[in-house]
Amino acid sequence: MIHVTIWNEYRHERHDEAVAKLYPKGIHGCVADFLSKQPDLDIRLAALDDPDQGLPDEVLNNTDVLFWWGHMAHGEVDDALVERIRQRVYAGKMGLIVMHSGHHSKVFRSVVGTTGNLSWGRDTKEIIWNLMPSHPIAAGIPDHFCLDCEELYAEPFYIPQPDALVFASWYDSGNIFRSGCCFLRGAGKIFYFQPGHEFCPSFYNPYVQRILTNAVYWAKPADIGYAIPDGAPHILEDVTNEFNK
Amino acid sequence: MIHVTIWNEYRHERHDEAVAKLYPKGIHGCVADFLSKQPDLDIRLAALDDPDQGLPDEVLNNTDVLFWWGHMAHGEVDDALVERIRQRVYAGKMGLIVMHSGHHSKVFRSVVGTTGNLSWGRDTKEIIWNLMPSHPIAAGIPDHFCLDCEELYAEPFYIPQPDALVFASWYDSGNIFRSGCCFLRGAGKIFYFQPGHEFCPSFYNPYVQRILTNAVYWAKPADIGYAIPDGAPHILEDVTNEFNK
Amino acid sequence: MIHVTIWNEYRHERHDEAVAKLYPKGIHGCVADFLSKQPDLDIRLAALDDPDQGLPDEVLNNTDVLFWWGHMAHGEVDDALVERIRQRVYAGKMGLIVMHSGHHSKVFRSVVGTTGNLSWGRDTKEIIWNLMPSHPIAAGIPDHFCLDCEELYAEPFYIPQPDALVFASWYDSGNIFRSGCCFLRGAGKIFYFQPGHEFCPSFYNPYVQRILTNAVYWAKPADIGYAIPDGAPHILEDVTNEFNK
Amino acid sequence: MIHVTIWNEYRHERHDEAVAKLYPKGIHGCVADFLSKQPDLDIRLAALDDPDQGLPDEVLNNTDVLFWWGHMAHGEVDDALVERIRQRVYAGKMGLIVMHSGHHSKVFRSVVGTTGNLSWGRDTKEIIWNLMPSHPIAAGIPDHFCLDCEELYAEPFYIPQPDALVFASWYDSGNIFRSGCCFLRGAGKIFYFQPGHEFCPSFYNPYVQRILTNAVYWAKPADIGYAIPDGAPHILEDVTNEFNK
Repeated sequence: MIHVTIWNEYRHERHDEAVAKLYPKGIHGCVADFLSKQPDLDIRLAALDDPDQGLPDEVLNNTDVLFWWGHMAHGEVDDALVERIRQRVYAGKMGLIVMHSGHHSKVFRSVVGTTGNLSWGRDTKEIIWNLMPSHPIAAGIPDHFCLDCEELYAEPFYIPQPDALVFASWYDSGNIFRSGCCFLRGAGKIFYFQPGHEFCPSFYNPYVQRILTNAVYWAKPADIGYAIPDGAPHILEDVTNEFNK
Repeated sequence: MIHVTIWNEYRHERHDEAVAKLYPKGIHGCVADFLSKQPDLDIRLAALDDPDQGLPDEVLNNTDVLFWWGHMAHGEVDDALVERIRQRVYAGKMGLIVMHSGHHSKVFRSVVGTTGNLSWGRDTKEIIWNLMPSHPIAAGIPDHFCLDCEELYAEPFYIPQPDALVFASWYDSGNIFRSGCCFLRGAGKIFYFQPGHEFCPSFYNPYVQRILTNAVYWAKPADIGYAIPDGAPHILEDVTNEFNK
Repeated sequence: MIHVTIWNEYRHERHDEAVAKLYPKGIHGCVADFLSKQPDLDIRLAALDDPDQGLPDEVLNNTDVLFWWGHMAHGEVDDALVERIRQRVYAGKMGLIVMHSGHHSKVFRSVVGTTGNLSWGRDTKEIIWNLMPSHPIAAGIPDHFCLDCEELYAEPFYIPQPDALVFASWYDSGNIFRSGCCFLRGAGKIFYFQPGHEFCPSFYNPYVQRILTNAVYWAKPADIGYAIPDGAPHILEDVTNEFNK
Repeated sequence: MIHVTIWNEYRHERHDEAVAKLYPKGIHGCVADFLSKQPDLDIRLAALDDPDQGLPDEVLNNTDVLFWWGHMAHGEVDDALVERIRQRVYAGKMGLIVMHSGHHSKVFRSVVGTTGNLSWGRDTKEIIWNLMPSHPIAAGIPDHFCLDCEELYAEPFYIPQPDALVFASWYDSGNIFRSGCCFLRGAGKIFYFQPGHEFCPSFYNPYVQRILTNAVYWAKPADIGYAIPDGAPHILEDVTNEFNK
């Protein structure tokens, strides 16, 4: 079983009628719906206004892959929670999947080491191009697919060079965007994916669903063959002594 | 079933008594022995002196992952065979695992785009360090392990920056080496691994065996969601027309 | 002085009136015109139909940066010449700048290790986006600029992950393209740049000119602090002995 | 003129006689001594116990390249100062060079996005290998050089994959380390370099001096061709409108 927790700011859906109609269970509920088709995924929901901002120790410490959707309340997320997430990702205990406006979340900026700045504009047509067809996150995805409506996120996107640039997008406004980016940090894996505006039905698109599902299997903790230390251990004996044993 | 073909120059084992004693079935036979513990691997052996240099179309076109060990007869490998391997890897139909002295093979140099030059010396003690514990090829591998005897391969190693540098090695002679390197080329994956000198028992080391086994699963063809074209197709219609459909 | 040689297939300009009118001195002549504004560049022209295909030893061995434009006659370029170029780049003696349809040249495919396959279409509007504003090749370039007419080159572009992805392009047809890519190979540097269709005036665009000029300074041979060996030297003495000296 | 500020914790030199004897002007003073041989560098010193921790706005905002040496007082560095440094690096206004024990500084961890964890041990012999001889930071450096005494810093080093791995080190204890790493973050450049233990004379080594000098020229702000925005600007007009102008 892979333990997945889908964290959602969950404000738009409660305060905006159009968003509520599109995502009646919340964006996290919609993501849970399609992820739960996978028999080996155990899925939990978490929201900003839940106790402990949805991620008390007993939840976070049992999460293998954390999804993150936030937008208007990035500043309300507790710094100590961000630090716990950061440590867990770096230790290789949890993968992180950041969706859409999460590019500006404390979590993404702190874990990846970036401002996440970009330009943004009106809702528009987007075509997502598959630049790394052999990447696990692109499994089963055609060379491109179209979204009739997404929020324009545009280059320059001030991120580190991704360890893998899997998808990039075209918009009819004349813009492009690196829309599917893998980052490796410590022993952890992070995937950023652009679609997911609260006013757009992207989470119902089968390719978006396939990509986010693929991302779970890619980001889940690896089978690491030793205990990763918490800090900077002191070496007391030369490794060369092992040759005599 | 993953179809694995282990290609070996297979000259040392037939002409040098010490090597024959160490690897009585040949290096390829030894690799086959440990790989065959995996129930989902279908394993075939191929050697330079076999008909069609071991890789006629019916073999190569049914190979998902190709292992390559060569040393003294790189120049005898047919250029047309090298080109067929190169095309198959780039098309994402076959992964490639290059062992030890294969760094100088036509196959490695042509597929990766490199001279593969390095410095080399006496047989010596080697410690292999695990730099990317969360990489699939490092699954189950400790932070380091020791080989009492390997051939010294030393930096500078004139390769492109690897897409992932999984292992690097220490030698008691004062040298280091990037000993486990992943390269992505087209839709194909290549793993180079340093151990495997014909006079050393590295292929009996359980960590070496685990790494090469892991590499099969990493390098095998991906589930690519469309037919990768053979050349440069002419686009006849605008992609933007798809929005109206 | 940096010795630059601009190699051009130079067939279109001699056989097609429209191209001849656009580039009366040939594409190489046009590139030479704007490069020659730099006082520290010594510029030479070379063409496929020149003796020794324009690159006899005395030219190639005195070239610090080689520009390459080819299209319809890739197959005529001599394999031995390609190999000489490849060796010179890997040895760090020469940088390589490949323009437009050179993506399919033997030189690009062999040096980088790729098919260079892509999709292509009608001449169209292109917007070039600057993804790495702090890269030396992007010096002085705005966040984007427009070309009213270029040949559509489209993803998927089957190249290795670039060491730096400096520019990417939008086309009004719904396509995108990684249009400015840096590759490191051995001790050499390669820059691929998409604009440069024989029927389009891109080489007169000031930003294209600035980028190609910047690329010369980026790609020129580095100040390497030792003699890079030609092959795989045998190490005769332990490096640890140097501590006693 | 490139404005360089060398920040040093400057505690060991004031409280430990052996360190004071080795670096009578402080480590920062020693670095300043060799950097000041470059006529185009304007050098300033800063220390933790200076007012505003040595980096008031008028200093930081006039710094092109910031050197950072810290060890026992990482926790005392003000979070707001770290954030100002981080923003300035990401905006491309300042390069950052982190030395030795700075791997655990707030500045390094926050800017790069890492724990910077590693293993460490006794002072020992180190050999630094040059993996990217054509990188600007390796200009003039031989394929390797020896330090008779440095503090053992050992893999696994839990950092993101460097954008360029320029140097890696061998220690006689059986360890290795990625000792010279370049990271790109936003429009800024960061170089981490392992040598520099307070009890070792590494800053007097001519190769160490050359590398740190090279790093200044590599890390200095680029000639960026537009004003990088501070946040996420709203796009009000389609870029495609520019074609009509």
